[in-house]
Amino acid sequence: MTITFQAPSSDKAELEGDGAFTPRFDSDGLVTAVVTDIRDGELLMVAHMNAEALALTIETGVAHYYSRSRAKLWKKGETSGNLQTVHEVRTDCDQDAVWLKVSMSGHDAACHTGRRSCFYRAVKKSDGGAVLEIQDQQRHFDPEHVYSGHDETGKR
Amino acid sequence: MTITFQAPSSDKAELEGDGAFTPRFDSDGLVTAVVTDIRDGELLMVAHMNAEALALTIETGVAHYYSRSRAKLWKKGETSGNLQTVHEVRTDCDQDAVWLKVSMSGHDAACHTGRRSCFYRAVKKSDGGAVLEIQDQQRHFDPEHVYSGHDETGKR
Repeated sequence: MTITFQAPSSDKAELEGDGAFTPRFDSDGLVTAVVTDIRDGELLMVAHMNAEALALTIETGVAHYYSRSRAKLWKKGETSGNLQTVHEVRTDCDQDAVWLKVSMSGHDAACHTGRRSCFYRAVKKSDGGAVLEIQDQQRHFDPEHVYSGHDETGKR
Repeated sequence: MTITFQAPSSDKAELEGDGAFTPRFDSDGLVTAVVTDIRDGELLMVAHMNAEALALTIETGVAHYYSRSRAKLWKKGETSGNLQTVHEVRTDCDQDAVWLKVSMSGHDAACHTGRRSCFYRAVKKSDGGAVLEIQDQQRHFDPEHVYSGHDETGKR
């Protein structure tokens, strides 16, 4: 890892301008990563990155995250083959989130359930509560088969 | 607030299926909200929601968030007029993030800097570090004027 990040400025104008990228990691050392498909802008997934994952992503052009459930660096697609090539990285006004525009290899699926996007369910109002309706049933791969013997079974 | 959320299931298949929406709030009681424009899918902002903000959003069809910096419920656009009408809410496989597809009123700008999107800067590699390049200079409103005398000057 050669890229290092400086501490964010306490000056708001500086934080919102151009100049150095100074990500604002939270108390767990993470920023939020929003991942969309460069083809059509579809939202594929939301994940988290620590400084190492962010530096590796910028350096290599391949998406790396930090798995909170496994508490370690996570090269997306290492097990499933669904690597993400990063075409553009953006950050937001207060630099605590990044947006990756990616193209997928492998099965063209970002979700560990085998679907293209993790956001395959709509939320609907229902009698004082809310229910989920599945919008995408297409599995691009069989999770049982792909993750058999591996621990990359959850997206985090 | 009439919508209440049940505790998430510890059963993975249940969490990933249809049935009740059982958001997985983090230790601060928040889920991540990704907001895109229904017109063209542009990523507008990333914010956070507590149970109250999420319930109000689902119930009223107008986006509500939780401001971490101000530690209170935040009806987006209350000061600036840039309300967000929610056309669809989705959630991801482990139900700790939601995706809102919205249309904006007011100045057609989600960012407190006056830009359409908070993600107006690209991150580029540069000599062992990373720098920011502004991609969108168009201000849809003058923040100084719009937020004068109000405290909604930061997006969180």
